[in-house]
Amino acid sequence: MLRFADRCWLIVACLVVSLFASANPLLAADKPPKKPKHPNVVVIFADDLGYGDLGCFGHPTIATPQLDRMAREGMRLTQFYVAECVCTPSRAALLTGRLPIRSGMCSDTRRVLFTDSKGGLPASEITIAESLKKEGYATACIGKWHLGHLPQFLPTEHGFDSYYGIPYSNDMKPTLLLRGGQVAEDPVDQTTLTTRYTSEAVSFIRQHRDDAFFLYLPHNFPHVPLFASDAFKGKSRRGLYGDVVEELDASVGQVLATLRELEIAERTLVIFTSDNGPWLIKNQEGGSAGLLRGGKGSTWEGGMREPTIAWWPGKIAPGTTSAELGSTTDLLATIHAIVELPLPNDRVLDSHDLRPVLFGTGPSPRKSLLYYRGRQLMAARLGPWKAHFKTQDGYGQAKPIEHNPPLLFQLEHDPSEKYDLAKNHPEVIAEIRQLVTEHQKDLVAPPSQLELR
Amino acid sequence: MLRFADRCWLIVACLVVSLFASANPLLAADKPPKKPKHPNVVVIFADDLGYGDLGCFGHPTIATPQLDRMAREGMRLTQFYVAECVCTPSRAALLTGRLPIRSGMCSDTRRVLFTDSKGGLPASEITIAESLKKEGYATACIGKWHLGHLPQFLPTEHGFDSYYGIPYSNDMKPTLLLRGGQVAEDPVDQTTLTTRYTSEAVSFIRQHRDDAFFLYLPHNFPHVPLFASDAFKGKSRRGLYGDVVEELDASVGQVLATLRELEIAERTLVIFTSDNGPWLIKNQEGGSAGLLRGGKGSTWEGGMREPTIAWWPGKIAPGTTSAELGSTTDLLATIHAIVELPLPNDRVLDSHDLRPVLFGTGPSPRKSLLYYRGRQLMAARLGPWKAHFKTQDGYGQAKPIEHNPPLLFQLEHDPSEKYDLAKNHPEVIAEIRQLVTEHQKDLVAPPSQLELR
Repeated sequence: MLRFADRCWLIVACLVVSLFASANPLLAADKPPKKPKHPNVVVIFADDLGYGDLGCFGHPTIATPQLDRMAREGMRLTQFYVAECVCTPSRAALLTGRLPIRSGMCSDTRRVLFTDSKGGLPASEITIAESLKKEGYATACIGKWHLGHLPQFLPTEHGFDSYYGIPYSNDMKPTLLLRGGQVAEDPVDQTTLTTRYTSEAVSFIRQHRDDAFFLYLPHNFPHVPLFASDAFKGKSRRGLYGDVVEELDASVGQVLATLRELEIAERTLVIFTSDNGPWLIKNQEGGSAGLLRGGKGSTWEGGMREPTIAWWPGKIAPGTTSAELGSTTDLLATIHAIVELPLPNDRVLDSHDLRPVLFGTGPSPRKSLLYYRGRQLMAARLGPWKAHFKTQDGYGQAKPIEHNPPLLFQLEHDPSEKYDLAKNHPEVIAEIRQLVTEHQKDLVAPPSQLELR
Repeated sequence: MLRFADRCWLIVACLVVSLFASANPLLAADKPPKKPKHPNVVVIFADDLGYGDLGCFGHPTIATPQLDRMAREGMRLTQFYVAECVCTPSRAALLTGRLPIRSGMCSDTRRVLFTDSKGGLPASEITIAESLKKEGYATACIGKWHLGHLPQFLPTEHGFDSYYGIPYSNDMKPTLLLRGGQVAEDPVDQTTLTTRYTSEAVSFIRQHRDDAFFLYLPHNFPHVPLFASDAFKGKSRRGLYGDVVEELDASVGQVLATLRELEIAERTLVIFTSDNGPWLIKNQEGGSAGLLRGGKGSTWEGGMREPTIAWWPGKIAPGTTSAELGSTTDLLATIHAIVELPLPNDRVLDSHDLRPVLFGTGPSPRKSLLYYRGRQLMAARLGPWKAHFKTQDGYGQAKPIEHNPPLLFQLEHDPSEKYDLAKNHPEVIAEIRQLVTEHQKDLVAPPSQLELR
């Protein structure tokens, strides 16, 4: 037997040799990927998923082991918003980093694009895809577009090398599936839609293992009508809605597994979120906003705060939760900063660089939020305070109710917006009014693209 | 340089030596613990904590990194209940494995024990502590008792070797702190209560590292009035309620850290849960039931379903979620089974062995639940279905509303109890009525202990 000290030295020596040996590429089974200059970005966007619909955001009977794992390996963002409470404007905001009122991508009368619409995201808008493509990224949009289905508005006109998906919502007829600008299936078999989007996404990632890539993966579900593939139908405790969300969960799992398998996880930022809150009027076919009030179509928190997870092994600390403020409009500035690209300087952006939040180095540069419903500014948040100047339910309420003084909620104490504190804090209301005045002072709102037909 | 094959052999040899060396107890810094025959059990019980009040159950602004870690290392139970929606009966049920109606520990007029009460948990009841003490366990109750403050009802009369805590709720005067049967502080300084309970708990664990022990740690918070220590006051985004929950979170972290440090984690089952739902009428000083309806004092889900985490490294799979049915009354049978003790056979128990759920080997043996409010059976659950025969809000509603037919909810599809399906499923109602009839057939309900004064 060796003496204790000798044994310690032997262990140290062994570890050194082991480390050296395992670092030697000759021992790796596969050729390692080439390292492109820039990290990859994947944005996975659910449709009408509620704040409370994931296991890691508190749903009791929807099993989301893959998203829960993503959260364990990454960061849950609990105060992360979209810029509008319905599809089209929310998507325009994510890709452009601008409030939809600035791009004409919202309307009070036609809240989203329909199949008879003639409008779409203007060519003058700069999308994340466009910036990254210029920088040499491979870019793909796989899924629901909903920013104009006429040829001049399609993803391939907005910075994406390729497009595969339904150009609008899955309840709009005809339910075309496009590849590039061509119809690939009409009507589309929606039961296999998530499966096919996932396969396309995995293929795209495999094909671009050695490149820098941007994958925008906006799923069509859990927007109604709900469809799940045979492997998921009838499997969830939560019924069909649960089946559909659990299939999305598995899809996320496949994307992350592919990144790990290809050994590119450590240079890939993945963001998972949703376009707006749950479609409550669909009853059990709609989701749950958890403890938040309201849902899709309204500017209550449930309409606009989304269950969000950020994942980047080695960069984002695992198992963390951040309640710092963020918005999908911030993705543009954040991604530009990560890639070290200058921001477009010829237009107003509503985009903040969230690297301090993601990398745990400091507070969010975002201190306020504007809650638009169509072209109307309904509410504004400053720090933890939210003032509702008007409220209107998602559906079934013809006109907004005006509030003067506004309703005032301290959202971090009262996330369910139950306790109006307007009487106690006129000074907060004054500050929020000032914020709104500043915003409106130089606001240029072009005509609505959504009203063209 | 070594050849490839030689290098591989060297690595194998090094690993073998390293493993041998690290397994050798001479190299361990401390003496390892003796291994008692039985595992330890720790039950941490919060007071009025809501289903939605933990990060890992979806709260956006209460930071619970320790409980989140406990969940990452263990199992979240998302359909886990208490047997009554207020303190005293809920606690009686946990310790005895019996519905409070069987022990006389409930009442319609005086829902809990007050400082003028003359009753308490009858000596004839068998608690988990009593069974484990007989088997040689060291047993301690640290915290809120609320099962009788007269000498004959105290924890030390019910199987606990020692007691330290407030014998009832922290809003009852005098707010005595007892050690054993003696007053240690009057009035108690509530700001340091959680700190002191935690120190006591850690000391107890250290002292009994080499024994089998049962620690029952029922905190007094977040029951109002809320108090946090200086280290936590003003620290949470969620205000004072958040401070208080975050201090409990840190307390749980200290308990688990102690178990790890003493190298006894792998033979310790820890359960964290709460005695009933959030006290909603306290407004922002009360908690949140998340997506569940109602709160403390009612038999809506929010009153009786609790945020529950089970932890046992090596036994309970890490990072898992179970939606299988469970109740605090099941802890008795589960613990008896783990310790291989026969169950009391001279009385009716409402207790199922949940090992299949905890160890992931099968479904829950529990298929139904009875929702009592005082001495009235308000609702019953069978599988995913819940029928409300009567409903009554926690506070502020003088009489129950009777429902005939009962309200019927499919809780796994509709956890928020929004969509009454009674008309569609008379056959389910018939089954649930049958369950209730069976239960009531041989029910023996002794006079209420809570009405004695």
